[in-house]
Parts: sequence; structure tokens; C-alpha cells
Amino acid sequence: MEGTYSYQQLYQFAKNIFLQIGCNDANAETATKVLLSADLRGVDSHGIARLVGYVRLWEAERINANPNISIVHETPSTATVDGDKGLGLVVAPAAMQIAIDKAKNVGSGWVSVKNSNHFGIAGYHAMMALDNDMIGIAMTNASALVAPTFSSEKLLGTNPIAVAIPSGNEAPFVSDFATTTAANGKLEILQRKNLDTPNGWVQTKEGFPSNNANELKNGGALLPLGSDRDRSSHKGYNLGAIVDIFSAVLSGANYGPWVPPFPAYVPMPEGMPGEGIGHFFGAMRIDAFRPASEFKLHMDKWIHRFKTAKTVEDHQRVLIPGEPEAEFEIERKANGIPLHESVVADLTELGKKFDTPFN
Amino acid sequence: MEGTYSYQQLYQFAKNIFLQIGCNDANAETATKVLLSADLRGVDSHGIARLVGYVRLWEAERINANPNISIVHETPSTATVDGDKGLGLVVAPAAMQIAIDKAKNVGSGWVSVKNSNHFGIAGYHAMMALDNDMIGIAMTNASALVAPTFSSEKLLGTNPIAVAIPSGNEAPFVSDFATTTAANGKLEILQRKNLDTPNGWVQTKEGFPSNNANELKNGGALLPLGSDRDRSSHKGYNLGAIVDIFSAVLSGANYGPWVPPFPAYVPMPEGMPGEGIGHFFGAMRIDAFRPASEFKLHMDKWIHRFKTAKTVEDHQRVLIPGEPEAEFEIERKANGIPLHESVVADLTELGKKFDTPFN
Repeated sequence: MEGTYSYQQLYQFAKNIFLQIGCNDANAETATKVLLSADLRGVDSHGIARLVGYVRLWEAERINANPNISIVHETPSTATVDGDKGLGLVVAPAAMQIAIDKAKNVGSGWVSVKNSNHFGIAGYHAMMALDNDMIGIAMTNASALVAPTFSSEKLLGTNPIAVAIPSGNEAPFVSDFATTTAANGKLEILQRKNLDTPNGWVQTKEGFPSNNANELKNGGALLPLGSDRDRSSHKGYNLGAIVDIFSAVLSGANYGPWVPPFPAYVPMPEGMPGEGIGHFFGAMRIDAFRPASEFKLHMDKWIHRFKTAKTVEDHQRVLIPGEPEAEFEIERKANGIPLHESVVADLTELGKKFDTPFN
Repeated sequence: MEGTYSYQQLYQFAKNIFLQIGCNDANAETATKVLLSADLRGVDSHGIARLVGYVRLWEAERINANPNISIVHETPSTATVDGDKGLGLVVAPAAMQIAIDKAKNVGSGWVSVKNSNHFGIAGYHAMMALDNDMIGIAMTNASALVAPTFSSEKLLGTNPIAVAIPSGNEAPFVSDFATTTAANGKLEILQRKNLDTPNGWVQTKEGFPSNNANELKNGGALLPLGSDRDRSSHKGYNLGAIVDIFSAVLSGANYGPWVPPFPAYVPMPEGMPGEGIGHFFGAMRIDAFRPASEFKLHMDKWIHRFKTAKTVEDHQRVLIPGEPEAEFEIERKANGIPLHESVVADLTELGKKFDTPFN
């Protein structure tokens, strides 16, 4: 049944599960922290609800619990990293740290990653830059659920992009979004409630407009940001393509329709051209461009101006990217994280399997 | 009256005009080449049709014909450039060249520019990277025409992003788009034809949906990519904001509603926090990640797979970013560039003023 759980409770449980599948203590801690950052920030689809999915990938022998994450090629400002089939939750922070270290040395760092798996929320990795007074960038490809403009085939993942930008007294600017009109998690919410989607989220197997929240199960596809050609869906398609190329063609991971699926029961694509899934990370030191104190004053001015803009009737105010998530984080750290009954059931079963009771 | 003109004809005319406003020969050549690359690629709104606009900015003493473009701050992989009030058409290629040179040395180069003006099409600058086997990135802010999600005020420009990626035998991948549902040039076409816009392009002064192609003149606004909250306009708003911050908050240019307008007759915003408009450029050497030959094989495979995807009924095929523009370029180099009668009239008048007959 539905319930609300403290961060500490969920942390201990998830960490125990990661230990059970063979992660060492440091890897189990990192994976847990990244995974639960989604629950804290209100991105429920990418948090502990996915723990079962990661375990299934491990059962399918697609996850290496203690990967040897290595740099296979580098210059002073770039690196290509082999994730050695590790959990993306572990590979991604290690790769982002390499980007940050390079930025410390030469102003910026850019890391493309192959042979990884799903990395949780992109925002977590981008935000690692903030404490270093750097701008952070994180993106990843994912298995194909999205049809490019004019295509009836699914060729791209929801391929998110996150950008985190430091500020002064204001909360930092944290943008983190799928390059589709709607992320898959939003469809799942409508499915549970038996509701139709708004126009422009999905198309049928043949490529016709649909409002059926279950359309993906019928062979349909998600639509790129922009929805249709009249509203510039080619721009969303371009964005998703750029993420795919930076993450996978640059690193040697799989791309386009060949990206391995997250659900372990879905068969792997045939003729895969690379290794695992791909990510891309960037870090730029603010003071590689101008003094950080100066930048932060102007960022605060930027944020303040947007926050106080005149709004459309009925709307409270213009939101700054990352604000709703930061509010979730405060609220959920204080009052706990609500879990849907199906998630509680999954975790309970998982706990039994690994002799690690949930609750 | 309407007519079709050879590239050489337009090149000579535009170069002469730039010489007349005091550009030295090298600057006049660069400005002309960048400006006309828009006409060649079919982006008519950003080409020679804007020559009059640049001249008016010069008349208003907002343009320095021979700027002293200088690096004011740098690290091995980054630089901040002061455009010295130059034509963006001249400042941008110089700044992109700095990014490319840095990439040659340390793998990647990233340049934020202040004190510049409009730089033509973003794609031109990004494509400078291609001949160097580099990925090129170019973006710019622009005067505020766009209302963020929930805002009735215009706070962002159409803030385009261009990304150019080398390929092998296939044409390169060149994405270049405004972060709005529709660029202003598309509205102008509808205005001339007295047609309504599709849903999701513009809103009224109060922030209500509209289909009036003249809505901007009534105090209305363009909408961010995504159109409305149901179709994730906050993602287009985020993208436009990121372009604004990378281009201007990082460099010390004006941002948000304070970006100087392109039309010289529009008064400058009050209380401007920076200098001129801002751009941001990036260059990444392919072989800073993996051997270029390997990358190009996979890029060709990527492009081929997308090109040959099954399409939605009635659609020829899935387009690769930059393909339509490359086709325009071949066609227009061979058969000339068609100009609208109002553009011909503007250029004829401009020619008279500067004793440089058009035609």
C-alpha cells in the first residue's frame, strides 16, 4: 500500500540492495545517493521506483557491480571514458568528476562515456559542478521511444539535457529535461489514472496523432519537443539527435535505434554498433570567463528579473529552472518521500528476495 | 520589383556597401560572406535583406566598422572576447577562430563574447569547425521578443543554437534553430500573405493564445519551443535562457530584456547591465575523443539509418539536420538568389545613398 518514507529509511534500504548485488561500499553509497536524488527532487519516475529495474539488469548480467572505470583517450580538456558495464549511477559521477578536474586545470572539461547504463537524473551530475563554481552539463542517450519528424519508426531515446549554473544569493539555475514533449514518466501517470494525453505527446504506430496514453504499447512513439512540424518538432528531433551523437557516436557507445533498453525483459537490438549506452558531461569554470563574484551578481539580477515578470492571468509567477525541484527537496527532506502502492509492492518483494526487509 | 540575382552580383554589392561604411577590405569580405551564407542556405530573413538594418545601426553609431577584437580573459580552453562594438558578422568568425585554435591545442575551445552586434546565421560560425574535423557550436542572444512560460512580458530573444558535426561520405549534420516555436522570419512571411499563424506561435499582450501574425506589433510575444505548458514550453524557455546566460552573463554583455534591439529606430532599453549583445562559441576536436576516421564511419551509419527510416504516410523521408539548407546552397549557387520586391527596393535605395548602384 501507498506510504511515505523518510530519506534515511529509503537510503538504507537501497544501499543494502546495492551491497547485495555486489557493489562495494563506496559504489553502493554513490548509486543510492544518485538514485534517491530523483525522489527528493520530485522526479519520481527516475528514483527508487527504478531500483527493481537496475537489479533486473544485474540479474541479466548487463551490470558490473564494481566496474573498472577508465579513461581510454584524452586531451587536457577532453576524455573518453569506458564505463566497463557499470551502473550509470556510479559511472556518471566518476566521469563528471573527470570533467570537473579538467576544468580546474584548463578552464573546461568535456567527457564522452561509452559502455554505461542508465544514470538516474541528469540534473544530479550537472549539479556536481555547482560547488566548484562551475557550470555543469550532463546528457545521456536512451533506448528508442521517440519518432523523429516524419518518421513512423522510433529512433531516439528521450535523451535528456541538464545544465546547472551557479548563482549568488538566489537558488542556482538547474534545467533538466527530456528532449520530447513529455517524458515517459508523465505518460505512466496518465495510464494509472486512465486519462488521455494532451495533443502532441504521442503518435500511433503508423505515425498519426493520438491521445492514447498507452500508445507506446501499441507500437506508437513519443514525439520530439515541438510535437509536430507546424510547431517545429524538427527542433526537438535535432536536440535529441545532438545528445545521441555527443553521448554515443563520440564515445563509441550504441546510438539511435541500437541503444540497449532499460527493461531487462526487452530483447537487445540486433547489430549493435557500439558498447552499452552513452553519456556526455561538461564543466566550465566560471572564472575561466570572468570573476565568479561578478558573474553571480549578474545571475542574481537575471533570476530576479525573470521571477518578478508580469504573468499571464491566473499564474502565480514565472518559474526559474530548478525552483520546483528545489522546493520538493526541502519539503521531502522534512516530511518524507511518498511512494505509490505499486512501488511499495515492488520494493517489498525485492526486500524479500534479498533478505533485506523493506519496512 | 522581384528578381533573381547571382551570388557574385550580391557579393559585390554588399561588399561595396560595407566598404562604404568604413570596413577595411578583410572585414568587408568577412561580413559579406557571413551575411550571404544565409541567402545561399535559404534563410532569407537573415541575409542581404538585413543589409539595410546593419547600415542603420552604423548610422546610429552603434557599429564600429573596424573593431579591435580582443581577448579580455582566458584559460587554455576558454576565452572571453570583447567585440568592440563591431559587426557581429565580423566579431563572430574571429571569436569562433579563437575557439578552434584553442581546440587545436587542448582538445576543445569555448568563447563567450560581449560588446557585439547581430552575427547573421549561427550555422555559418558553427560550420567553421567542420573543415578542422571539429564539432562546432554557436549561439547568440538577441533582443526580447519571447515570453517565458506563464509570462506576459517579453524577456528573451529568439536565441538560436547551431551545432555542426562532421561526417564521412554523407553531408555533415548541421542543426541551426531559434529556441522559439517559430522564428520571426516565418511570421513575416505570413504577414506579407495576410495569413494567420498555426496555434502555439504567438500570444497576445496579456498572454492569451493568438493566431494573429501581427501580434508582436500589438505588444504580444513569440512563444518558446513547445508553445504552451501542456506541450512543455518551459523546455524552450530553458533553452533560450541557457543561450542568454552562456552568451551574456558569462561574457558581460546585456541579457534578458536589456539586449539592444536590431532595428536602429527602437529605443535602447533602460538600465542596461552589460555591453552590446553576447555570443557563445564552442569547438571540440573529434580526435580529442576518438580517431576521426572511426567517428565519421559511425556518423555516416547514423545518418544513413535516419534517412532510410520508415515514414509517416505522405512524407518523402526523414530529413537530416542541414540537408534542406545544403540543397538550397547547391541550387542557389547555380541559379541565383531570388529576392522579394521589398528587399530589391531597399537595396536600390541603399545603393543610391552610397553611390553604389544596385543592379
